[in-house]
Amino acid sequence: MKYLIILLLAGLTAGAQAKKEQLNLMPWPQNVVLNDGSFTLTKNFKVNITGNPNSRVFGGATRFLRRLDGRTGLFFEQDFITKLNEAPSAELQINCTKSGKIGLYEDESYHLDIKQNKITLNATSDLGALHGLETLLQLLQNNSSSFYFPNSQISDFPRFTWRGLMIDASRHFQPVDVIKRNLDGLAAMKMNVFHWHLVDDQGWRIETKKHPKLIELASDGLYYTQEEIKNIVKYADERGILIVPEIDVPGHGSAILTAYPEIGSKVITLTGGTSEKNIQGTAIATYGIERNAGIFSPTLDPSNPKTYQLLSEIFDEVCPLFPGAYFHIGGDENEGKDWDANPKIQAFKKKHNLKTNHELQTYFTMQLVPMLKKHGKQLMGWEEILTKDLSKEAIIHSWKGPNEGVLPGQSLVEAVKKGYKTVLSNGYYIDLMYPIESHYLTDPMPKDATLSAEEKARILGGEAPMWTELATPETIDSRIWPRTAAIAERLWSAGNITDVADMRRRLETISFRLEELGLTHIRNKDVILRNIANNQNIKPLTEFSNVCEPLKGYTRNKDGTEYQTYSPLTLFADACTPDAKDALVFDAAVSQYLANKTPENKAKVTAFLNKWIAVNKELIDLSANAPLVQPILPLAKKLSETSQQLLLLLDNKSGLKPADLKSLIEQCNTKDHADVELAVYTSFKKLI
Amino acid sequence: MKYLIILLLAGLTAGAQAKKEQLNLMPWPQNVVLNDGSFTLTKNFKVNITGNPNSRVFGGATRFLRRLDGRTGLFFEQDFITKLNEAPSAELQINCTKSGKIGLYEDESYHLDIKQNKITLNATSDLGALHGLETLLQLLQNNSSSFYFPNSQISDFPRFTWRGLMIDASRHFQPVDVIKRNLDGLAAMKMNVFHWHLVDDQGWRIETKKHPKLIELASDGLYYTQEEIKNIVKYADERGILIVPEIDVPGHGSAILTAYPEIGSKVITLTGGTSEKNIQGTAIATYGIERNAGIFSPTLDPSNPKTYQLLSEIFDEVCPLFPGAYFHIGGDENEGKDWDANPKIQAFKKKHNLKTNHELQTYFTMQLVPMLKKHGKQLMGWEEILTKDLSKEAIIHSWKGPNEGVLPGQSLVEAVKKGYKTVLSNGYYIDLMYPIESHYLTDPMPKDATLSAEEKARILGGEAPMWTELATPETIDSRIWPRTAAIAERLWSAGNITDVADMRRRLETISFRLEELGLTHIRNKDVILRNIANNQNIKPLTEFSNVCEPLKGYTRNKDGTEYQTYSPLTLFADACTPDAKDALVFDAAVSQYLANKTPENKAKVTAFLNKWIAVNKELIDLSANAPLVQPILPLAKKLSETSQQLLLLLDNKSGLKPADLKSLIEQCNTKDHADVELAVYTSFKKLI
Repeated sequence: MKYLIILLLAGLTAGAQAKKEQLNLMPWPQNVVLNDGSFTLTKNFKVNITGNPNSRVFGGATRFLRRLDGRTGLFFEQDFITKLNEAPSAELQINCTKSGKIGLYEDESYHLDIKQNKITLNATSDLGALHGLETLLQLLQNNSSSFYFPNSQISDFPRFTWRGLMIDASRHFQPVDVIKRNLDGLAAMKMNVFHWHLVDDQGWRIETKKHPKLIELASDGLYYTQEEIKNIVKYADERGILIVPEIDVPGHGSAILTAYPEIGSKVITLTGGTSEKNIQGTAIATYGIERNAGIFSPTLDPSNPKTYQLLSEIFDEVCPLFPGAYFHIGGDENEGKDWDANPKIQAFKKKHNLKTNHELQTYFTMQLVPMLKKHGKQLMGWEEILTKDLSKEAIIHSWKGPNEGVLPGQSLVEAVKKGYKTVLSNGYYIDLMYPIESHYLTDPMPKDATLSAEEKARILGGEAPMWTELATPETIDSRIWPRTAAIAERLWSAGNITDVADMRRRLETISFRLEELGLTHIRNKDVILRNIANNQNIKPLTEFSNVCEPLKGYTRNKDGTEYQTYSPLTLFADACTPDAKDALVFDAAVSQYLANKTPENKAKVTAFLNKWIAVNKELIDLSANAPLVQPILPLAKKLSETSQQLLLLLDNKSGLKPADLKSLIEQCNTKDHADVELAVYTSFKKLI
Repeated sequence: MKYLIILLLAGLTAGAQAKKEQLNLMPWPQNVVLNDGSFTLTKNFKVNITGNPNSRVFGGATRFLRRLDGRTGLFFEQDFITKLNEAPSAELQINCTKSGKIGLYEDESYHLDIKQNKITLNATSDLGALHGLETLLQLLQNNSSSFYFPNSQISDFPRFTWRGLMIDASRHFQPVDVIKRNLDGLAAMKMNVFHWHLVDDQGWRIETKKHPKLIELASDGLYYTQEEIKNIVKYADERGILIVPEIDVPGHGSAILTAYPEIGSKVITLTGGTSEKNIQGTAIATYGIERNAGIFSPTLDPSNPKTYQLLSEIFDEVCPLFPGAYFHIGGDENEGKDWDANPKIQAFKKKHNLKTNHELQTYFTMQLVPMLKKHGKQLMGWEEILTKDLSKEAIIHSWKGPNEGVLPGQSLVEAVKKGYKTVLSNGYYIDLMYPIESHYLTDPMPKDATLSAEEKARILGGEAPMWTELATPETIDSRIWPRTAAIAERLWSAGNITDVADMRRRLETISFRLEELGLTHIRNKDVILRNIANNQNIKPLTEFSNVCEPLKGYTRNKDGTEYQTYSPLTLFADACTPDAKDALVFDAAVSQYLANKTPENKAKVTAFLNKWIAVNKELIDLSANAPLVQPILPLAKKLSETSQQLLLLLDNKSGLKPADLKSLIEQCNTKDHADVELAVYTSFKKLI
């Protein structure tokens, strides 16, 4: 290190007291006290571990050292931490009193005490210690020449015990490295549950040696081997994360039924023979892997003993791969069409006195409970499994909301009142491209409901589902991060931490730091734009992407047939994200200008308008050699035209009638171009 | 696809004849004929395969479809190609007459015929077909609104049968995803050998179930499981790539000897006892995993039967993981110090009439030949294994050159003259940060040597070694790519394809297209710069990096102790690459100006000089909140000061004496700052 001496000398000057508003902690800890002075990092910085922790803390502390080293360029002398009390005089002393258990209700608290020459991290379990190390990394400050931690005391613990992310590996398969880097992201955000959606209409993704047909016929060769699954389970364990696998049944069954059509519910009528002798009969349908997105009818036959035999054998093979105590069986979106049309199933319902398809599905679900219990697993399912006869041990995954015609979190209240434990996902659907604020302000604990303490305790926490109809390995990180960090804060921090502006400020640094874990949410944007630009200068595309957002909700990929599960997604919309950066800044500038029409405030607004006029011209130039730019030109034109008129308006030179100006602005309220919308539309309306 | 109709209509207008100079093919095919007209791509584009190929061509054709889809955004209807003659009327017809065998001397030729409505790809083996698909992807052209292939006929085959890349997974461990994406890069460049350097002083990286100590004690937990190795071997096979594993013995032995010190060569003298009774004795040394870079003495004991027993057992376990016919046993850089000092080994030499350590090493090597032959493997080793008694079946890996005090490729000529097959690596050391030109113009076939046809035929080809003392998973791609593409051209294309400027032109597009394979050589640069900039604007760092190159040869990491094998490498030098972009453009501008001193030519030069003055100021501003910028400030200052004086000189306003100006420019010829050098120094000298 040629500049070590400079850093050491400069380090001595670091020491002014940091302010809480300067800290970029997320999730915000339960208790933060800042003191005068600071701990300055040097090449000699070392870590020591004492107590009685699980050995995962050694790997965690080593990774901590490497990340700190990467940020500071100090090249610490300490290499791999592999045992207790290796460096008794180390500056960072970690003590844990017991070995942490992966799962719910474990003590994840920690206490961090930073002084001038010593940092102490005390935790009950190594899981708490891992959280504390993440907080310490987030505390890193710098002046012009050195890095330091501000003297402080932090006491911290989670508000909810279930803080999860779900990744759908069926619709667009997500390889091992995608899962691993996102597990690192979860750990950095103190999240502790990874829900792995492994089976859906679009593919079966688990190697099953006893039933190789599932892989051979229903995976397109895109699946996780059992070795890979074990490897990922270990990787998650090392980071304090519980894996909850999901095999979605009895609906979403296209993939399973592609391999095993004999357990499907659909009957088809066969006609054949000759004109003289007409032959009619019925047969069960055959199926194919679903390529599109949507809700499909293929459903397992709950009246067929073979269904339960197959599922039981599958669970016998799959359960041992996952040491955790929970198994998700899906259970959602079974519309029962094929059940209604199948006389055998109707007869079965009658025989077992099952009045509705819902009751029939509960019958089905209840058959799975002992299959899982045999392996020490509790059953979890999407809220549709909640009916009167369901085992009280099942966990209800609450997901429906206004889009499905019910109040947000309605099933969550219903579940806890009936005595079930529950996890909230409604409001956390990060695949739908809603603004971060909407997720951040969704609290698993309902505000209006009158719940007893016991009922409240059944609300385990929340989980962000990342469905992958529109996310490939190249784009998924930008759909998950950084918004999931805000959800992590909702699930960990005190319920009154709700300042959106402050969250946004902190998130900018958090998002940047997540890059060091290999997450591609920032870096892959330029990759997509370079492809669109055909390797020309991407600047105009970047500028334009900063005011465009992908279509929200289920409006992109209408009818689910525009893009398939094997489609690469390399379009402009795939480079855009919610919370378009410039749109937020522009909106603030507009508000400021409208409140106080100074030349300075006006200039902030007009700078954007002029930029967008220029961007339109640059995009036209770019498109001469880039076909993929063509689809965005009409939108860029609308932005440019409106910007021109608004410039004239601000100078009181507009020749347009108010109605014409209004309709020009309304043109910016469109979903017709390139799967994106202009995020400045509402700000434009404010200006007229 | 909302804009499908536009693309289809526009497609009709594509058709002007392309020129060879517009094609970005690499490696350049043996024979290219361009015709009038073109084949325009639409959503309906399909692929059909006939003949008798290995099934790997199905996966290859499917990946081809996906990549083409990603580039064009057409969302082809065809999903997964899984069998012969699936789409008989498809526009692209692939025919192979036989199943290709992974290894040397296979027929890799292909013939591509593109007509207005039909593309035919004929190849003897599927390996040739895979190469043809890569050429087709490289042929992709576009106008403003559609994508097309120019009508053409291409006949192609490789000049050399060994076209390899070596990755050192020992010094900085490189996880599975790094290996996989680089295998994709190799396939795209029609390379067919991946040499996997799995063992060295710095770590043992193969899971060995019979000898778990190697992993437990000598890997720091960083190794490939046997499942992962099998998975990678399969991945390589699917891409037509042979894997040659390397276990480096008897030197480079620190890791092996950490686990098994009893087979080491070093004896140490023990002294003990009391002042009355002095006890002396000898013992074998113990070892630790090496953390630094360099040549170290730990060496296996060739006189110890246990050495051969262990190696034999290891080969019995490792060989079956690799179906290829070659096994690399290293054999390099054994300096024999510990042999000389060990009386037992000296006695062994005498007994076996082995006069030199070289002869002793040959004795050692020859013991390994049958161990490998048992598993159908030929032994390969670095050139040090070449001595008079070596088996003629061994392949000699020629690596030494001027840096080691010999003529480049000297051992290659020696080897073929003695009847050995050989592979050249000298001249292809991409880890040493030399300019691309030096690699491109290194030909495995020596120009001056008088070799018979038979001797020439023993030159199998070449291989680029990527040693990882200074490369992490985050930076390794930018060390390998795009320079390895130029080496691929040297090994595949005709020997007279040597136009450096044309290669550079084509390489820009090739490098961009390699991104679609997940390679991070472009995207990770900004990641490093963002970390250095502490998430401030990276523009001045980017500008400065465009005139800086990492120190070349072995001048960075002097004495091998500045950076360790566990060090993250996140410094400015790690974001820089050879062939600094702006330096090349600036040099051309200087030459143009000196040849013709027009105001326009002068302006091109002064624009750069002014930019560098501005960059220096911006870097100073940036450094106020970014300690990692500090180390580069002195260099930026030198560039700025020199630029200021050169501006004055160009305006004839310089007040400096020629000697002072010269010494100012000499300041730019420095290796003292931030592990980089200024790539504009020689251009500056031209200006005075």
